[in-house]
Amino acid sequence: MSKRKICAVITARPSYSRVKTALQAIKEHPELELQLVVAGSALLDRYGNAVDFIENDGFTIHEKVFMVLEGENKTAMAKTTGLGVMELANVFYNLQPDAVLTIADRFETIATSIAAAYQNIPLIHLQGGEVTGNIDEKVRHANTKLADIHFVTSQDAKERVIKMGEDEAYVFNTGCPSIDIAATVLEDSKLDFDPLKKYGGVGEQVSFKEGYIVVMQHPVTTEYDQAKKDVLKTLKAVDKLNIPTFWFWPNVDAGADGTSNGIRSYRENNSPKNIHFFKNMEPHDFLKLLVNSDCLVGNSSVGIRECSFLGVPVVNIGTRQNRRLRGENVIDVAYEEEAITEAIKSQLEAPRNIKSSIYGNGDSGKKIAEILASVELRFHKTITY
Amino acid sequence: MSKRKICAVITARPSYSRVKTALQAIKEHPELELQLVVAGSALLDRYGNAVDFIENDGFTIHEKVFMVLEGENKTAMAKTTGLGVMELANVFYNLQPDAVLTIADRFETIATSIAAAYQNIPLIHLQGGEVTGNIDEKVRHANTKLADIHFVTSQDAKERVIKMGEDEAYVFNTGCPSIDIAATVLEDSKLDFDPLKKYGGVGEQVSFKEGYIVVMQHPVTTEYDQAKKDVLKTLKAVDKLNIPTFWFWPNVDAGADGTSNGIRSYRENNSPKNIHFFKNMEPHDFLKLLVNSDCLVGNSSVGIRECSFLGVPVVNIGTRQNRRLRGENVIDVAYEEEAITEAIKSQLEAPRNIKSSIYGNGDSGKKIAEILASVELRFHKTITY
Amino acid sequence: MSKRKICAVITARPSYSRVKTALQAIKEHPELELQLVVAGSALLDRYGNAVDFIENDGFTIHEKVFMVLEGENKTAMAKTTGLGVMELANVFYNLQPDAVLTIADRFETIATSIAAAYQNIPLIHLQGGEVTGNIDEKVRHANTKLADIHFVTSQDAKERVIKMGEDEAYVFNTGCPSIDIAATVLEDSKLDFDPLKKYGGVGEQVSFKEGYIVVMQHPVTTEYDQAKKDVLKTLKAVDKLNIPTFWFWPNVDAGADGTSNGIRSYRENNSPKNIHFFKNMEPHDFLKLLVNSDCLVGNSSVGIRECSFLGVPVVNIGTRQNRRLRGENVIDVAYEEEAITEAIKSQLEAPRNIKSSIYGNGDSGKKIAEILASVELRFHKTITY
Amino acid sequence: MSKRKICAVITARPSYSRVKTALQAIKEHPELELQLVVAGSALLDRYGNAVDFIENDGFTIHEKVFMVLEGENKTAMAKTTGLGVMELANVFYNLQPDAVLTIADRFETIATSIAAAYQNIPLIHLQGGEVTGNIDEKVRHANTKLADIHFVTSQDAKERVIKMGEDEAYVFNTGCPSIDIAATVLEDSKLDFDPLKKYGGVGEQVSFKEGYIVVMQHPVTTEYDQAKKDVLKTLKAVDKLNIPTFWFWPNVDAGADGTSNGIRSYRENNSPKNIHFFKNMEPHDFLKLLVNSDCLVGNSSVGIRECSFLGVPVVNIGTRQNRRLRGENVIDVAYEEEAITEAIKSQLEAPRNIKSSIYGNGDSGKKIAEILASVELRFHKTITY
Repeated sequence: MSKRKICAVITARPSYSRVKTALQAIKEHPELELQLVVAGSALLDRYGNAVDFIENDGFTIHEKVFMVLEGENKTAMAKTTGLGVMELANVFYNLQPDAVLTIADRFETIATSIAAAYQNIPLIHLQGGEVTGNIDEKVRHANTKLADIHFVTSQDAKERVIKMGEDEAYVFNTGCPSIDIAATVLEDSKLDFDPLKKYGGVGEQVSFKEGYIVVMQHPVTTEYDQAKKDVLKTLKAVDKLNIPTFWFWPNVDAGADGTSNGIRSYRENNSPKNIHFFKNMEPHDFLKLLVNSDCLVGNSSVGIRECSFLGVPVVNIGTRQNRRLRGENVIDVAYEEEAITEAIKSQLEAPRNIKSSIYGNGDSGKKIAEILASVELRFHKTITY
Repeated sequence: MSKRKICAVITARPSYSRVKTALQAIKEHPELELQLVVAGSALLDRYGNAVDFIENDGFTIHEKVFMVLEGENKTAMAKTTGLGVMELANVFYNLQPDAVLTIADRFETIATSIAAAYQNIPLIHLQGGEVTGNIDEKVRHANTKLADIHFVTSQDAKERVIKMGEDEAYVFNTGCPSIDIAATVLEDSKLDFDPLKKYGGVGEQVSFKEGYIVVMQHPVTTEYDQAKKDVLKTLKAVDKLNIPTFWFWPNVDAGADGTSNGIRSYRENNSPKNIHFFKNMEPHDFLKLLVNSDCLVGNSSVGIRECSFLGVPVVNIGTRQNRRLRGENVIDVAYEEEAITEAIKSQLEAPRNIKSSIYGNGDSGKKIAEILASVELRFHKTITY
Repeated sequence: MSKRKICAVITARPSYSRVKTALQAIKEHPELELQLVVAGSALLDRYGNAVDFIENDGFTIHEKVFMVLEGENKTAMAKTTGLGVMELANVFYNLQPDAVLTIADRFETIATSIAAAYQNIPLIHLQGGEVTGNIDEKVRHANTKLADIHFVTSQDAKERVIKMGEDEAYVFNTGCPSIDIAATVLEDSKLDFDPLKKYGGVGEQVSFKEGYIVVMQHPVTTEYDQAKKDVLKTLKAVDKLNIPTFWFWPNVDAGADGTSNGIRSYRENNSPKNIHFFKNMEPHDFLKLLVNSDCLVGNSSVGIRECSFLGVPVVNIGTRQNRRLRGENVIDVAYEEEAITEAIKSQLEAPRNIKSSIYGNGDSGKKIAEILASVELRFHKTITY
Repeated sequence: MSKRKICAVITARPSYSRVKTALQAIKEHPELELQLVVAGSALLDRYGNAVDFIENDGFTIHEKVFMVLEGENKTAMAKTTGLGVMELANVFYNLQPDAVLTIADRFETIATSIAAAYQNIPLIHLQGGEVTGNIDEKVRHANTKLADIHFVTSQDAKERVIKMGEDEAYVFNTGCPSIDIAATVLEDSKLDFDPLKKYGGVGEQVSFKEGYIVVMQHPVTTEYDQAKKDVLKTLKAVDKLNIPTFWFWPNVDAGADGTSNGIRSYRENNSPKNIHFFKNMEPHDFLKLLVNSDCLVGNSSVGIRECSFLGVPVVNIGTRQNRRLRGENVIDVAYEEEAITEAIKSQLEAPRNIKSSIYGNGDSGKKIAEILASVELRFHKTITY
C-alpha cells in the first residue's frame, strides 16, 4: 500500500519550533510520507532564516514559496495572504498530498487552509481551540472551521473546538509538539555552549555565569501603534534592574518595525550595559538557555507552554497570551515599568515552580503521526448542531 | 456627524438578489452611506451579468473587481479567492469603509472577509449560522469566525452562531432580505409579462397559460463529477412529465460545466418539447414567475426561503439544501428520476401550502440598515467560552 | 553529458500549431530535453482545448498554468499577463531549464519572456521581426529586446531584428515550423475525412464535395469595438455568395465577445444556409481542408504563411496581417461587404497561385532543434550600436 | 478644455530624483494634470522611504502600490514585476490617465509599461536609448518597444532609439531632468548644512571641512554573487586611503544583501576610522555634498550624469555604467583595490574638470512638460522599417 502523503506548510520560525517533532515523527513513520513546504517569513533572512534550521535538522524541502509582500502594514498582510492562497494552490495541485497540515494562527496560515480546503484536500489544523483576543484569534477559529481534523494541545482547547460544532471523533488532544523538544532538553539540561560566541548578536558581552534572564517581546497585531511604546517599558525595567539579560528580536508582523525601532532607538540613546541582543537561536539551544535562566520576560507563548513543562518562572506582559491555559510558573502584568520590575524581582526570589503537563508529556509528535496514519481523511463535514 | 460608510461586496447574481433590499435601505438611511463593490462572476456576461441589474436598480457602483480565473476547476476556485483577497485589500484601503458586508457562503466571499478583517475593518456577515454540508458550509462558518457582527435569517441560525462562540449582543435575527422582495411581489402577483418575449432564451416556445413548473438546479461543489449525471435525472423526469417548464441555467461554480454540458447534450439528443431555457431573469419577474407556477423543482435556496413565504410548492432535490430550516411547502427527494417524478406529481395535486414567516416578514432590509446605523462597529472580539 | 533542457510555453491553440514540429524535433534530438508548459487559453475548453491536441500528439506536459482572468477586456488582458509572470516565475524556478522558448506576439507571451529573462535563463524568441501594427507588434518587439537568441521565419524578419540592435550571430532564419506541417500535408493532400462528421460543430450541413471556402476572422485587438461590426461584413458577403462555407470561431482576445456575438446574432437572425461553424480542428485536418478549399477568407496568419506555401488563394481582410511578407496568393481588402464579395469571386476564378518558400522549406523544426543543441546559451547581451 | 492627465509611476528613490523637475513642471503646467503613483521600494522604509521626500516636496500622491515581494532573489524580482502589472492595471483603470510615464530601466518599470500599453493608454518612456549591459538594458529597450513617445537624455540615446525602429517624430532629446536639479545647486553651492547632524547615519563622525570623498556602490544585477566581493574591494581601498568619506547604502535589487552584508561585515571586523555611512539624503543636499566633494567613487549613474554637469571628478567602478555617454570628469576602473586607489589619488590631484552639457542644460523638466501638452498622444505604432 502506498504511504499517505502529509504536506506541512511552515510559514515562520516559531511555527517550525512548534511542530518540529511532529514533522520528524511523520517523516519516520512507515506509513507516512512528509511533504515539506517552507513559505513566507520562514524563508527570509531578516526574520531568522528558519529554512536553514529546517535543512540542518535533516528535512528535505519540497517547495519554497516566496509570498511576503513588503510594507509591514495591514494591507500588505492581507495581500501576502491572498498571494499565499494562489501560490499554495499551485503547490498542492502539483504535490497532490493526501492531507495538508496548517499550523496555529498566524495571519498567513489561512492561505494554507483555503488552498487545501478548496481543492478538497483533507485539512488538518494544529493548535486550534485556544484563546488570545486579537486578529490571531479570528484566524485560528476560521482555520478550525475550514479544517476537517483537529490536533489540539490541551483539554480546554479540545472542549472549545467541539463546542464550536466540530465532530468529537475528529478532535484529538495530542499535547503540544513543542513540549517534546522541551522534554529532550530536560534529559541533559546543562548550558553547554556560550551563547555569545555561538550566536554573535549585538550589544554588551554580558556575564551570564551567575544567572540571567531572557526577554522576548512581540508586537501585538491589533495594537499596532503601541508596539514601540510597549517595548520601551520593558527595556527601561530590564535596563534598571541591571541583571544580565539575553533579548531576542521579534519575528515579523505588522508592527514589527514599532518594536524593532523601539529597541534600536533605546540602544542608540541609552546603551544598556546589561543586555545582549540575539536575532535567533536553534530551538534546542534556546530551550537550554531558558531552562538555565532565572526568568523569561515578555509575551511569547513559550512562556505559557514550554516554560510550564520546564518549570521556568515567567513574567508575561500584556494581552498577547490572554486566556491561554497557564501553569503556576506565570505572573501576568500590564505594560507598566513598575509592574514589570516588581514581577521580575518576585520571580527571581520565588522557589522554582512545580512542573506541569497541561500541554503534553513529550510524546505529541508521535501521537500526531500515529493518528495521521490511521484516521479517516475526510474533506466533507457539517456542523454538529 | 459624518455618515457611516458601509461597503458591500457583491460577487454573484444570487447574492445580489439576496441583499438587494438591504442595500436599498442602507442607501436611503440618513446616517449611512453605501459603497458598492461588484466583483467576480457578477461582472461576467456568461454568468448573467448581475452588474447590469444592479445599475438598472439605480445603484452607483464604486469599484468593479475582475478576479475570476478561468478553468472551472477547484484550483481555479482557490486562485480566484486568493486574487480576490489581493484586489479587495486594495479596494478597502482606498474606500476606507467603516464596515464591510460579506454575504453568505460562496467560495469567494472569504476573500471579502479576509481583506476586511486583516485591515481591522469591522466585518459584518449576512446569513451565517445555516447548515448545508459542502464546501459552502466551511466557508460560511469561517466567515462567521472572521466577522464581528452577524445578521442571520432565522432563529435556528441565530442559535447556531451563538453556539459557535459569538457574542449574543452582536448576533441579529433580521430575517432574510430576499423575503422583502417576495413580499412586494405578493402585493401584485399577476404574471403581467410574457417570459418568452421578454427574456428570449432557447428551446421550445412552451404554452404556459394553463400552468407550468420552474426548474433551477445547481451543481453541488464537492460532488463535482456527479453534476452531469444528476441533472440528467431531473431532465428525464421533467421531459417525460411533459408539463410546460421554464428551466434556468446554473450560475458558475466548479462543476458548472458538468451541469451545463448535461443540459446541452440532453437538448441536442432529446429535444424536449416542453422545456424552455432561460439564462437569467430580473429578480422581481422571477418571483412573479414562481408565485404563478405550480411547483419549483431543483436545489435552489429560493425553494427553501422565498417559496416558504410565498407558499409555492417545492421539490427539493439532493443534498444542497440539507438541514436548512424549511416550511411545509417542501418535499425532499434524492437524485432519482422516479422519486422526482412522483414528488412533482404530488405537489401538483396538493393544496397550496400555508405561508410561513420563518425567514422574515418582509422588513429585513430596513432592520439591517437600522442596526448598522446604531450598532457598535467593533473589530476586536474573543470567543465567548 | 547531460541534455540541454529546453522549456517551451504554449499559451494558445494557434501558437501550438506554429511550433509543433519544432517541439517534436526538440523532443527527438539526442542532446535536447523538452520541458513543455501549457498555459492560458490553451487549457480552456471554450478556446478549443489545445491541451488535448498536444497530449494526443504524444507530448508530455510538465506543467499546466491557469492564468486567464475572465472579463475579456483590456484590463483583464493586462492582469492575465501579470499573473502569468508570477506563475511562470515559479514554473521556471522549479523546472530549472537551460533555455526558455517564447513564441511570437500574443499579449501573454511577454509573461514568459519576463519570467525567464529576470531569472537569468537564456530566452529564445520565435517569430520576431515581423510587422503587423497593433498591440501584438509592441509585444513582439519587446519580446525581441528581452530575448537572447532569435529564430525568425523569413529574410525580412531577420533583417529587421538585426536592425533593432540584436547581434547577427544570434539571429537565425529557420523558416516557420508551421510550413513543416503544411509540407507533410502536401505529401498526401486528399480530403480523406468528412469534416461535418468528424468535428460536429453547428449550423447547416453544407454540401462541400463540389468546392467550398473557409473563413477564419479574429478580432483586431486595438480596434476592440469594431469587432462585431467587422465580422458582420464578412458574414453578409459570405451569406449572399451562397457558396458552401466552413467558418471557424475566433480564439480568445479582448474583443472575442464582439466577434463571437456578431456571429451568434447573425446566425439567430439570418440562419445562413451555406455556412457551417467549427470551434476547432486538428491542425493536420485543417490544412487538408485548406488545401482542398477554393479560398481562405478572413484575417488569419495562416493565409499569409501556410497558404503561400500551399498555394491556396486568400482574401485577407483588414489590418491584422498588415506588412507581413506575403506571396502572390493573397488579395487584400478592407472590411467592406462589396470588396470582400468581389475579392472572393476573383479568387474563385483565378488560376491556382504559384507556391512560394518565403516562409521556409518544411524543415524549420529540425533547424531549430539543431541550433538549440549547439548555440551558445547566453543570457547577457548589449545592443549592437 | 480639460487638462491632459499625465500619470507618473515612481518605483524607487533614484527614479524620483531623476524626474523630480519634470513632475514639478507637469504639475505647474496650465494644460496638464499630474497623477502621481508611488510604488515598490519607493514606499519602503529600508530603501530610504522616497515617499516621504515626495510628500515633503509638495506632491499629492494619488495611489500607493505595495508590490515588492521579499526574497531579494531573481524569482522575487520576476514576481514583484508580475504583481506590479496586476496592481498598476487597476490603478490606471481607476485613474483613467491620458498618458502614463515610465522611467528608465529598473526591472519593475516594465510593469508600468505593460499595464498602460495593454489598456491602450499612450505610454511615454523617459531615458530610453542608453546602453549598460545587464538586465537593465533588456528592460530599458523593451520599455522603448512598448512605448509610444520617447524622452531621451542625450543625442546618442536619441539616435539609438530611432535606429531601433521608433518614429523620429516621437523621439525627443530633452536632456535629463536630473541636470535641472544640479543646475539649481550651482546657483548656491555652499555646503550650508552639517551632514552628520542633519542625517545621522552610522560610523565615524568624520571631519569633512578639509575635503572628503563620497562613495555610492550598487550591486550589479546579473553579477549577483559578486556583489559582496566587489564592495569589499572599494571598502579596502577607501579605508586605506584614510580620507574622510561619506558612504551611501545601496538601494534595493537582487544582490542588495550581498553589498549590504559586505559593508556590514567590513564595519564589524575593521571599524574603518574615516568612513561615515548614510542611508539616504534629500536630493538637493546630496548634490551639494557632491559639488563640494573631491571625488565621487562607485558605480552610480550620478557620476555619469550630474557630475558631468557639475564638474565633479568621478572614479567609476566596474560595468554598471558601461557605454553610457560620459564627460571628461570620469576615470573608469575595474573592481580592483589597487586600481581604485590609484584612480582616486589621480582625481584628487587633477584640476577640476570642465563642465559639460551632454545631458542637458537645466531645463529638461520644462521641455518635457511642454511637449506633453502638445504632442499627439498616440497608442498605436509600427516599426519604421
